[in-house]
Amino acid sequence: MHGLIRELFPICRSITGDGVRQTLARLAQEIPLVQHEVPSGTSVFDWTVPREWNVRDAYVKHPRGERVIDFRRHNLHLVNYSVPVRRTMTLTELRPHLHSLPDQPDLIPYRTSYYKEAWGFCLPHRQLEQLPDTEYEVLIDSTLAEGHLTYGECLLEGDTPQEVLISCHTCHPSLANDNLSGLAVATFLAKHLATVPHRYSYRVVFVPGTIGAITWLSRNEERVRHIRHGLVLTCIGDRASFTYKRSRRGDATIDHAVEHVLQHEDPGRRVVPFSPYGYDERQYCSPGFNLPVGCLMRSHHGHFPEYHTSADNPDFVTPEALAVAFSTLLSVFDVLEHDGRYVNLQPKCEPQLGRRGLYASTGGSSPSDLAMAMLWVLNLSDGQAGLLDIAHRSGMPFATVREAAERLERHHLLAAAP
Amino acid sequence: MHGLIRELFPICRSITGDGVRQTLARLAQEIPLVQHEVPSGTSVFDWTVPREWNVRDAYVKHPRGERVIDFRRHNLHLVNYSVPVRRTMTLTELRPHLHSLPDQPDLIPYRTSYYKEAWGFCLPHRQLEQLPDTEYEVLIDSTLAEGHLTYGECLLEGDTPQEVLISCHTCHPSLANDNLSGLAVATFLAKHLATVPHRYSYRVVFVPGTIGAITWLSRNEERVRHIRHGLVLTCIGDRASFTYKRSRRGDATIDHAVEHVLQHEDPGRRVVPFSPYGYDERQYCSPGFNLPVGCLMRSHHGHFPEYHTSADNPDFVTPEALAVAFSTLLSVFDVLEHDGRYVNLQPKCEPQLGRRGLYASTGGSSPSDLAMAMLWVLNLSDGQAGLLDIAHRSGMPFATVREAAERLERHHLLAAAP
Amino acid sequence: MHGLIRELFPICRSITGDGVRQTLARLAQEIPLVQHEVPSGTSVFDWTVPREWNVRDAYVKHPRGERVIDFRRHNLHLVNYSVPVRRTMTLTELRPHLHSLPDQPDLIPYRTSYYKEAWGFCLPHRQLEQLPDTEYEVLIDSTLAEGHLTYGECLLEGDTPQEVLISCHTCHPSLANDNLSGLAVATFLAKHLATVPHRYSYRVVFVPGTIGAITWLSRNEERVRHIRHGLVLTCIGDRASFTYKRSRRGDATIDHAVEHVLQHEDPGRRVVPFSPYGYDERQYCSPGFNLPVGCLMRSHHGHFPEYHTSADNPDFVTPEALAVAFSTLLSVFDVLEHDGRYVNLQPKCEPQLGRRGLYASTGGSSPSDLAMAMLWVLNLSDGQAGLLDIAHRSGMPFATVREAAERLERHHLLAAAP
Repeated sequence: MHGLIRELFPICRSITGDGVRQTLARLAQEIPLVQHEVPSGTSVFDWTVPREWNVRDAYVKHPRGERVIDFRRHNLHLVNYSVPVRRTMTLTELRPHLHSLPDQPDLIPYRTSYYKEAWGFCLPHRQLEQLPDTEYEVLIDSTLAEGHLTYGECLLEGDTPQEVLISCHTCHPSLANDNLSGLAVATFLAKHLATVPHRYSYRVVFVPGTIGAITWLSRNEERVRHIRHGLVLTCIGDRASFTYKRSRRGDATIDHAVEHVLQHEDPGRRVVPFSPYGYDERQYCSPGFNLPVGCLMRSHHGHFPEYHTSADNPDFVTPEALAVAFSTLLSVFDVLEHDGRYVNLQPKCEPQLGRRGLYASTGGSSPSDLAMAMLWVLNLSDGQAGLLDIAHRSGMPFATVREAAERLERHHLLAAAP
Repeated sequence: MHGLIRELFPICRSITGDGVRQTLARLAQEIPLVQHEVPSGTSVFDWTVPREWNVRDAYVKHPRGERVIDFRRHNLHLVNYSVPVRRTMTLTELRPHLHSLPDQPDLIPYRTSYYKEAWGFCLPHRQLEQLPDTEYEVLIDSTLAEGHLTYGECLLEGDTPQEVLISCHTCHPSLANDNLSGLAVATFLAKHLATVPHRYSYRVVFVPGTIGAITWLSRNEERVRHIRHGLVLTCIGDRASFTYKRSRRGDATIDHAVEHVLQHEDPGRRVVPFSPYGYDERQYCSPGFNLPVGCLMRSHHGHFPEYHTSADNPDFVTPEALAVAFSTLLSVFDVLEHDGRYVNLQPKCEPQLGRRGLYASTGGSSPSDLAMAMLWVLNLSDGQAGLLDIAHRSGMPFATVREAAERLERHHLLAAAP
Repeated sequence: MHGLIRELFPICRSITGDGVRQTLARLAQEIPLVQHEVPSGTSVFDWTVPREWNVRDAYVKHPRGERVIDFRRHNLHLVNYSVPVRRTMTLTELRPHLHSLPDQPDLIPYRTSYYKEAWGFCLPHRQLEQLPDTEYEVLIDSTLAEGHLTYGECLLEGDTPQEVLISCHTCHPSLANDNLSGLAVATFLAKHLATVPHRYSYRVVFVPGTIGAITWLSRNEERVRHIRHGLVLTCIGDRASFTYKRSRRGDATIDHAVEHVLQHEDPGRRVVPFSPYGYDERQYCSPGFNLPVGCLMRSHHGHFPEYHTSADNPDFVTPEALAVAFSTLLSVFDVLEHDGRYVNLQPKCEPQLGRRGLYASTGGSSPSDLAMAMLWVLNLSDGQAGLLDIAHRSGMPFATVREAAERLERHHLLAAAP
């Protein structure tokens, strides 16, 4: 995953354009990915698919010929979606088009202007302050033209048409945690799921932020009723503990599942309530859809100093953090796949586990975790509580509760609720 | 307000009598006040309007002619509702009629005996201990006779017959915080409301404690169904943070509104649950009425050392505290007036705020408070949640949420829920 | 109660056998106890009543003739339900049959093997380590034969057939807190209840753990619908504060009643949620019954070092702790007996308590506890809230609330809800 991030990092992505296509083509080497192209001008709810943006070169050149700001060195130097420019300007004329971070004077900020025609350059504040007051040659060799919005979709069909939606945004240029980490983890999850049986169908969408999710929802309005659970994956590769942002509903199964897994796997986890600012959960959780979609992050967007700067580079994410995110999400999927309601077939008093070899024969000391889990499953399986509820109430990991249920089912003490 | 308190302080009020009339007459110079007179002997639920009490003079005189206790110096010296007395008594005979506070030896306590014929004097404990053992001339030149219970009522009609009830008790003699502060703030609120448009009708009642509220409820049994929200105002002028005592229901809109405003305006606030002891919320919240009436105080009655003593004088309340109470209550009224449920007219995904000039066009940094409030209002306006609910869930001040809703409504993105 | 514990301590109890009969015969000297005998082989839900176990003697003897482990010195030395053995064995052969506690090297552990034929001895670890490597004569002169399971039942009929169930386990041999303390307190409660009138019928069952409760439930399947409240009593005689384990429902009246009483009587109390491990609440709260049965303990089983060892001896329990447990349970019964819903007959405003002599006539200071309780009862008695609810909301002890209700009822201000 970390290698994939390093590979994709230099590509200049945006909400449209060849950078996105190039990125998706790379992912398609790993997983069965369908690439969708939606023409500029297409109406998607209250929005319109914008013109496609591509950029060949961009710089600010000193009269002596030196590129003082050079898009080829870092694509964050160019305000994303800048219109074409070819002018000579004084520093005073240029100044309003330059963006920097006075509080982080060594970093290049990330700025966009998708829906208003504008242009600009981003640079370290320290460099900005030292620009000589002279005439500069400014070039932005970009095109903003009728074209397409591109997104990728990977469907891994399961036993049922009910879906788990995984969504990550593809529009950020050279930013590693936000959101190459999401792309990488989602890709490797899909790659893994393609090799194992699963009850749910998993749909992984790689969409440009906001406009991409809106476009996908607009084109899949009927399909969303199949979505049972969903997650937006973003900023998932840095060294911080996990942050889970709940769905708008706040008590969806995905919320309980993620919180359960994190409770057992990440002592430093934070769970935050839904808010309508953030990533594409904004769209999935808009009131007209209100899908059960949460957002899994490590550092919370906007709350880490590297956020939306050139410091969010491949060194900021680690192979270990990506691997743990991957396995944590598999644990979440395990909960979703295997949660279910059962009925105790011997509901009056405890059944005699001992004679079935399910309970230690020597009395007087405490039962094993698995024996405890069997007692919990038997006690609470009245057809109402599911295994995740039982895991929650018992404080035991879902995997243990699930194993207990499987043992009890094999011994005809438990059956799936009708 | 503080000037009004100084002016009203010397008047000897009680649950009936000319002191109340004189007080209401002064308030009537500020606001349109109707003065009601209810004859002694009138049945009001389980109670009977008592005889009217008036007092001209009262003292305990030393044989040398000096008034050692003199009602004219402080009307707390006389137990309120004392029957007439004219006797010469030894200190031993007089002693059972003398009340003091051993723990606060310099203060005169406040004592009443409304419903049992009795008489007495209150004085500083230090003075009591030094009374010479001699014969005293005791005079209470009071009358307890058929007359009336007097209360004031100020109705400020709004666009609807639905009412906000403000109630404060008029019966306390020279006590400034309890409750000249309530009278003053309520009067100036009414004065202000008379000059501005409002949706609700506001009814401000100035009633003697307990018997007055019971009398008012008894004479307005049908009218109370119009009361949507209500507050008892008392002890609201001292330097302490606010204390809000919830209505009996505990989750009435008035409870949410006051708690919301205090959350944003008073970091030191305390919210306490309803209890059936206190002020006239006892009557408004009796189970046969169960009105949504809370009680706003600063210091909680009985929990500040000046309570019911001569230390509760005009210096104990401050113009600043009164002014803040006034503006805090206007904030509460603003919530009540403008709370409402809306529907997002573009509920599927976010509408494009940017092209309407409602959202910054340069992306990459955080939205403004107002933009956040718009996102919240759009996300939660499904016809169920009201603006106060949205303010609560978002953690934003109601005023910001309200402004966001107004902007969205002007842009046809929001409409009042049917 | 402590004398009874000392008397019963030496008896070797088990889930069947003469030790139980002897114990119940002693209890029958105190209370009207019916002794039930259920034949071995009887099916009780998923279980079968086992063969009856009795033991005359058991030892491990050194070749020199000395009994190095002697059942007659402490009956914990023998693994409960050991099959008969008469062999000469080397220490190596014997070793797998010896149980000790390396972490508590001076104590004899308590071990059982009810449902798997086995035998063994328990001894202090220090002694085990010093056993000479020689040949031992091992004798267990026990019988495991068709017989009966014995349990005791004491029914104290009340005004209604609705029952309060008290259950304690009789199967533990020489262990004082677990559960001679339960037997003793239950016996003396029954003895007391036999002398006073009560609304509920009280059924006290003395059953061997697990199999006994299952047997009782199996033979009383129809009767359990009469059970309104229930408690398992165990480990109730040591010096620790109370631990209350809630019923599976978690919000049964018994849960509220016990928690209320402990809140006022034991500042160190702990309340723990239901779990399906523990004592016979496991059976009463199995999903097919789901009875409102909690478990009252002092130290929580398994959480005190003396648990299931020879240190749980009569010195570990105290007369004081038993007496407090007794009186605490009487307080709980008082709540159950007298909880009820009332209606305020003067629901509009407060009734005038003063003229009925129920309220102090001098105003200005705080009301008494009883007056406060009357205000609470009047305010909340709308036919929905019961006295226990009122005690909870007011924070006042049930006894005060109950007294207030009785006074108000005598003054025709309150009546039982229809």
